[in-house]
Amino acid sequence: MILITTPEATDVQIKELITKIKNLGIDVQIFNCCDYKVMVLMGDTSEIDPGILESHSIVEKILYVKEPFKKASKRGNCEKTIIRVGDELIGGKRLAIIAGPCSVESKEQIINIARAVKKSGANFLRGGAYKPRTSPYSFQGLEIEGLELLKIAREISGLPIVTEIMSTKLIDKFLRDVDVIQVGARNMQNYDLLKELGRTNKPVILKRGFAATIEELLMSAEYILAGGNPYVILCERGIRTFETYTRNTLDLSSIPVLKKLSHLPVIVDPSHATGKWWLVEPMAKAAVAAGADGLMIEVHNDPENAKSDGVQSIKPVILHTVT
Amino acid sequence: MILITTPEATDVQIKELITKIKNLGIDVQIFNCCDYKVMVLMGDTSEIDPGILESHSIVEKILYVKEPFKKASKRGNCEKTIIRVGDELIGGKRLAIIAGPCSVESKEQIINIARAVKKSGANFLRGGAYKPRTSPYSFQGLEIEGLELLKIAREISGLPIVTEIMSTKLIDKFLRDVDVIQVGARNMQNYDLLKELGRTNKPVILKRGFAATIEELLMSAEYILAGGNPYVILCERGIRTFETYTRNTLDLSSIPVLKKLSHLPVIVDPSHATGKWWLVEPMAKAAVAAGADGLMIEVHNDPENAKSDGVQSIKPVILHTVT
Amino acid sequence: MILITTPEATDVQIKELITKIKNLGIDVQIFNCCDYKVMVLMGDTSEIDPGILESHSIVEKILYVKEPFKKASKRGNCEKTIIRVGDELIGGKRLAIIAGPCSVESKEQIINIARAVKKSGANFLRGGAYKPRTSPYSFQGLEIEGLELLKIAREISGLPIVTEIMSTKLIDKFLRDVDVIQVGARNMQNYDLLKELGRTNKPVILKRGFAATIEELLMSAEYILAGGNPYVILCERGIRTFETYTRNTLDLSSIPVLKKLSHLPVIVDPSHATGKWWLVEPMAKAAVAAGADGLMIEVHNDPENAKSDGVQSIKPVILHTVT
Amino acid sequence: MILITTPEATDVQIKELITKIKNLGIDVQIFNCCDYKVMVLMGDTSEIDPGILESHSIVEKILYVKEPFKKASKRGNCEKTIIRVGDELIGGKRLAIIAGPCSVESKEQIINIARAVKKSGANFLRGGAYKPRTSPYSFQGLEIEGLELLKIAREISGLPIVTEIMSTKLIDKFLRDVDVIQVGARNMQNYDLLKELGRTNKPVILKRGFAATIEELLMSAEYILAGGNPYVILCERGIRTFETYTRNTLDLSSIPVLKKLSHLPVIVDPSHATGKWWLVEPMAKAAVAAGADGLMIEVHNDPENAKSDGVQSIKPVILHTVT
Repeated sequence: MILITTPEATDVQIKELITKIKNLGIDVQIFNCCDYKVMVLMGDTSEIDPGILESHSIVEKILYVKEPFKKASKRGNCEKTIIRVGDELIGGKRLAIIAGPCSVESKEQIINIARAVKKSGANFLRGGAYKPRTSPYSFQGLEIEGLELLKIAREISGLPIVTEIMSTKLIDKFLRDVDVIQVGARNMQNYDLLKELGRTNKPVILKRGFAATIEELLMSAEYILAGGNPYVILCERGIRTFETYTRNTLDLSSIPVLKKLSHLPVIVDPSHATGKWWLVEPMAKAAVAAGADGLMIEVHNDPENAKSDGVQSIKPVILHTVT
Repeated sequence: MILITTPEATDVQIKELITKIKNLGIDVQIFNCCDYKVMVLMGDTSEIDPGILESHSIVEKILYVKEPFKKASKRGNCEKTIIRVGDELIGGKRLAIIAGPCSVESKEQIINIARAVKKSGANFLRGGAYKPRTSPYSFQGLEIEGLELLKIAREISGLPIVTEIMSTKLIDKFLRDVDVIQVGARNMQNYDLLKELGRTNKPVILKRGFAATIEELLMSAEYILAGGNPYVILCERGIRTFETYTRNTLDLSSIPVLKKLSHLPVIVDPSHATGKWWLVEPMAKAAVAAGADGLMIEVHNDPENAKSDGVQSIKPVILHTVT
Repeated sequence: MILITTPEATDVQIKELITKIKNLGIDVQIFNCCDYKVMVLMGDTSEIDPGILESHSIVEKILYVKEPFKKASKRGNCEKTIIRVGDELIGGKRLAIIAGPCSVESKEQIINIARAVKKSGANFLRGGAYKPRTSPYSFQGLEIEGLELLKIAREISGLPIVTEIMSTKLIDKFLRDVDVIQVGARNMQNYDLLKELGRTNKPVILKRGFAATIEELLMSAEYILAGGNPYVILCERGIRTFETYTRNTLDLSSIPVLKKLSHLPVIVDPSHATGKWWLVEPMAKAAVAAGADGLMIEVHNDPENAKSDGVQSIKPVILHTVT
Repeated sequence: MILITTPEATDVQIKELITKIKNLGIDVQIFNCCDYKVMVLMGDTSEIDPGILESHSIVEKILYVKEPFKKASKRGNCEKTIIRVGDELIGGKRLAIIAGPCSVESKEQIINIARAVKKSGANFLRGGAYKPRTSPYSFQGLEIEGLELLKIAREISGLPIVTEIMSTKLIDKFLRDVDVIQVGARNMQNYDLLKELGRTNKPVILKRGFAATIEELLMSAEYILAGGNPYVILCERGIRTFETYTRNTLDLSSIPVLKKLSHLPVIVDPSHATGKWWLVEPMAKAAVAAGADGLMIEVHNDPENAKSDGVQSIKPVILHTVT
């Protein structure tokens, strides 16, 4: 960590700051640079809360030398994590294609879609049982019944199932029933949930919050990894910007950035990012071209009559052109 | 709700769409406007999921006539909600000044600060027991012990206490121990938590997510109100923008907007919004000038040695100039 | 155009508004929808300034039925504009690869790069003579001398040249010397410049402002088209978001959106968008996968010693992998 | 300037980088910090283009020690600049109230408004003669005739006049006719225009671009100051964010930040920032509470019939409550 103090800092203030740093067990070297002082903190500062140094009124700027994510970082870890789910791999050579409806609506619907997406090349089935909805008056998912229907669809199709968790109360049930647990964008910083998932060894798809930086996504992954669960898959799904034509702005540059910084697999959800079915195909292709390890795509056999998110769902036949 | 269909829509497609709308129990009137068709849906459409209409490929645009928040809206409800907490009011004529440290650190610290903020004009004591931290390696709060210390400080100072909840597992404890429960920005769309708080009758401060629109904040309030708890206080605490000099951008225009749209009280947290102690005073004054019902301010007796967020904490003496 | 008035509107206010609309020569039909009135304005409202209606205090919302860009729209115009520059096409089947240094630095440099990019597959040479720089103390380009060097490089390499204009004073010179004129992101709403370019018949690359919506980009194109110049090429180059790891966030979904809305060719500049040379290759590939008609890429023979933007320049050999 | 190099950097690469820095005439000191090297560049690096160092692939991060704006900075300059315009001051003890219509529409209109705003406490008259409009089909202002009408209104009211310049071609005319020249948000980085204004000694109101950081605003001011014109007034007018209820998000924290960093006066335009007339009054008051030196407010005698921006114009009587 490097601190720069204001030219206005007095000798007494600088001495106080140095004493405080040394009391944290950190050695410090100091330079004059124009009228400023530059303090280089030597050694491992990763567990120092920068706030306790920024709070000194003479500290003008702070620069981190090391990345704050230790286990998510490629540095000091493996080059690439490959996650096995049943017979399938995420992060391996073959694209992981996770497809299915926004919401599980009925037994017939989920079975039909499971078969259709498998035929179109998907190797995972997704489907929402618990749905995070902006309005309390919108359809909230079939909940426990939805989970049961997903299990039936898995048995029939042979596809491992992926679904979103919204509450720590359901972790035991999800561990038993589900192959990959999804943490939605709105819960990326629900630390209570992340900590509990860190204590399991179930693969977790961690979606980037729509206002989260790349570094914050990696710090949320770090919560799970630090708890002891190494099976984290990062998922880019668009960030919130001033552009309103698309629901969010899909940040495809995050793929090569995440792959440079981290060993974790990176997948992309073009359906939620864009909110428009006709953008799914070109953005899925672009994601693959940018290096994504997989895609998470909303597919519905009858999008115009879907109970939720039909607008961003494609038909199975279009999925085929992507895979 | 108003739909506009593309000029390319065929008669068959338009008929299908009209049938679907009528099957939802909604009457519809149709106009030609240039080459477009304008469909005006008559009656209460608030429980219709717009997604199921947007999913029709011929729907080009949707406009909502009515606000989607019924209980949070001023329309059809009271002009202004005033919330009583012990002897104090939030939303009344007197400003609610909620002050205290980011984190409860020790018995001595919280008691000293409680006394000091009371003397400087605060009528509520805030303090973090459970802390949401970006890094799993940062100080996470004194947790249960912190709650106990807050209760002691309340007894000594007489100030009602406000603290943040992060997990549904702790709701019973918070209901017993705390006067006002705070939902942090990261949990504004943790619907599981909102639903459970809706079943209580404890006052809740709901902080605006740093990527949440004003309407989304009201929809999250609606979750609590729809559950039966009318005691919601909205809190503006800055939104995430491209500007990096301040931690977030405090959106003070949200105050008059929220007050026009809703009957709920609106308070402002200038400490978290700006992330810099020297911005707290001018922004607190500006918030009051813009019509805020209260302020939530981080105060520390020794900011330079605070365990967290010292950088944005002011000393009690500065609080005095604001109140 | 559709107006929705507040439930609080009086009959007198509604009558006044209707009279005003009719005085604009527009017919209007009115509905009751819950407590609101919905007014559908019939006929061509494209030349009505919405501000003069929004200013009525009883107008709560406005929805545009028709797109505000007439000549840039696909509707009512050709399916696809293909622009010929010498022997090359932009918008045709072959990708337009516009490559070259950020700044023209010397005769030797621009000639060497021109030869190298041609060999690597480029069909246009770009190079900055006039440079928009955030700091008045940074290198501002070789200016007029830079233009002369570009002309020499064109003669030797046979590649048409593309360079940025920053001032209306230079339009005559650019018309004579340059094959394609570039309007930079900072000048996308320099209407004075757009109007003057609209009076020429020189191809113009119009870069999306880093805070401009897709619709605003099309409206700026409309300025040039409305002036009589049909040769506009749209260029996505990243928008400003809260993410700071990359310089800007490349919005690749704008490619299929622009192609759906407009007949104009769309190219992408991954160099300025990302600000990092190692992101250029994956993002260039992603742009092509998303349907771009061309790429604008900064290439330098010796990026580590470039006078500007070396950090985002790739070597000619990497260009080869993209083309 | 401080550079941090990647742990992967070889000795040869580090030597090359050091040589390059020394060839720029800058001395450098180097530390080991974990596996990273920290390079502290000594002396004045303000004229070094950081791009030429970032382009080295081993440079991982750069931290600026000194602010890049020398003349706009408070450091090394006066504490506060006060600008005299006729008998009025901007930056002095009295608030500068700049009021008037969005567009000059007629002789009668501008004279009536000038008289009314003067009576309500304004000390400057604003009015648009040349209007930057998103659509080429919208009213573009009365142009030269508008300037003439402003001069008449000045003569009658005695108020100095403020109006926006959009083209360098008009500088001579504006120098003769106008008391304060306004550079609009869209032209904040029109460097050609800034350089020409830097050669005059006419007061310039420089509006913050809606996607410009505080530092970029100061860098644009630096262009004018570096040219020799010390009379720059900074104007906050809202930035573009994801929130769509207001036109832009007024960033009032920029006021105390700009006043800490710079000696230049800071005014606020709540009309353009919010785009709604009923937000002008609370936000104007908040701006004053946050320390603004002045306000720029759109006032119209008949907002509902204004030719542009009526929606954000207040009546003179409301202005009175702010001043």
